[in-house]
Amino acid sequence: MGEHVAGKLLIIGGGEDKKGECIILKRFIQEAGGRESRIVVLTAATEYPRQVGIEYEKLFTQLGAQKVQVLDVADRIQANMKGSMELLDDSTGVFFTGGDQLRITGLLGGTLLGKALQKVYEQGVIIAGTSAGASVMSDTMIVGGEEGTAKKNTITMAPGLGLLRAVVVDQHFAQRGRIGRLLAAVSHNPYVLGVGIDEDTAILVDSSGKFKVVGNQSVTVVDASASVATNVSEIDPGQSLVLTPVALHILSKGYGFDLRQRSAIMDENEE
Amino acid sequence: MGEHVAGKLLIIGGGEDKKGECIILKRFIQEAGGRESRIVVLTAATEYPRQVGIEYEKLFTQLGAQKVQVLDVADRIQANMKGSMELLDDSTGVFFTGGDQLRITGLLGGTLLGKALQKVYEQGVIIAGTSAGASVMSDTMIVGGEEGTAKKNTITMAPGLGLLRAVVVDQHFAQRGRIGRLLAAVSHNPYVLGVGIDEDTAILVDSSGKFKVVGNQSVTVVDASASVATNVSEIDPGQSLVLTPVALHILSKGYGFDLRQRSAIMDENEE
Repeated sequence: MGEHVAGKLLIIGGGEDKKGECIILKRFIQEAGGRESRIVVLTAATEYPRQVGIEYEKLFTQLGAQKVQVLDVADRIQANMKGSMELLDDSTGVFFTGGDQLRITGLLGGTLLGKALQKVYEQGVIIAGTSAGASVMSDTMIVGGEEGTAKKNTITMAPGLGLLRAVVVDQHFAQRGRIGRLLAAVSHNPYVLGVGIDEDTAILVDSSGKFKVVGNQSVTVVDASASVATNVSEIDPGQSLVLTPVALHILSKGYGFDLRQRSAIMDENEE
Repeated sequence: MGEHVAGKLLIIGGGEDKKGECIILKRFIQEAGGRESRIVVLTAATEYPRQVGIEYEKLFTQLGAQKVQVLDVADRIQANMKGSMELLDDSTGVFFTGGDQLRITGLLGGTLLGKALQKVYEQGVIIAGTSAGASVMSDTMIVGGEEGTAKKNTITMAPGLGLLRAVVVDQHFAQRGRIGRLLAAVSHNPYVLGVGIDEDTAILVDSSGKFKVVGNQSVTVVDASASVATNVSEIDPGQSLVLTPVALHILSKGYGFDLRQRSAIMDENEE
């Protein structure tokens, strides 16, 4: 079990292609076992579980999954039922849809299903999530926040699922101009790495703590661990941030990142 | 004459406060000599020179300038007239309004007025510019470009006024999510520093090559000079950028930056 990850994660910045080549979703099925994959789609985040569930069920079936089951956890009672756990136990891949990250943690946190998720993850089942399902991966997650200039009060944070440690993930990253709020997040504890994932882009993290970029846009890593000046503990909540220097890494297809070494790596398997 | 600057510049990210404390515009008048200041407002960038000219004339007069004159250069013939030059020669501060940066360089580049500007700048007259008037300060300027993910084709660049060397300035920075296009700009030549200035925020640069942050939001400096990996020369124009590592500095009031040393500094004069 690594410092950052205990298993395999596919963290998607939202808006993944569902009509064209479906590079990211295809990769998920492939990593989950391809024709032998048994997928559980968790729709806890969304207010439209039926609609979203059917969409991914159809997609994963088209992409060659052996079995796709949608688990719509409506309340914590259901999240403590044996049937839900067994479904997860039998899976080779779990997929969290988008929606509201607080719905996921509110419904799953501390339940039997939550424990089953941690167990299968540690056993090597790939856990994927898009948008809210991406944010929820880390131990502390960004719940909301203004776009624009980095300010202390531009973010609200909450405890996430903790599958990815000492990292804060943000999604729809470049599309919604979120570098300010990611920097505000890491400024609170520069030990934590900030990872901003663009739409139609994902990071595939393995248990060695390395990730590869999958998809068409970029992944931005901010590392403030070497920063010498910040005003985070002094300033008024609405005041603008000071944080210097921060190491910034702009990564796309063919590249990746070593979370332990805090440095970029090449992905030799990519053309 | 420094490596980066030959005189004094006030570079404003657009949207500076004109109704409240007017911190930035007040600072301009102060640096230009306060009650002894003689200001020339250059409206070359805007399509509404009369309206914009009157607005700044009123503002600078209210803020205590001794004399404010609006110079509306409508064509290159006028930019070569002696009268325009003499106006500049007699000034203690020059202010470029916003609009379109290509209008400024197209009208002034290579004219007598352009030369007069360079001369008074080197003699210590403060040159200020907001929005398009900010972009135009550097030797290479960003003319346009998409917001969002850093891509080679997200920017178009052109030669600027060259008052600030080896720096690319971008404005309305956090408000319009422009870090991607600034990174794309510096990736073309990592020797060049990228400086992104938020709205209602400015940098006050002196001839030693140091700047201070003035105003309420942030200034972002990106320094790719130590980057070890980039795909800028390989990728297709539409492909996403790789640039790692980049040194990132988030600065606000009370802080500044040394362009030569490429490191943040404290502004001791600020509370």
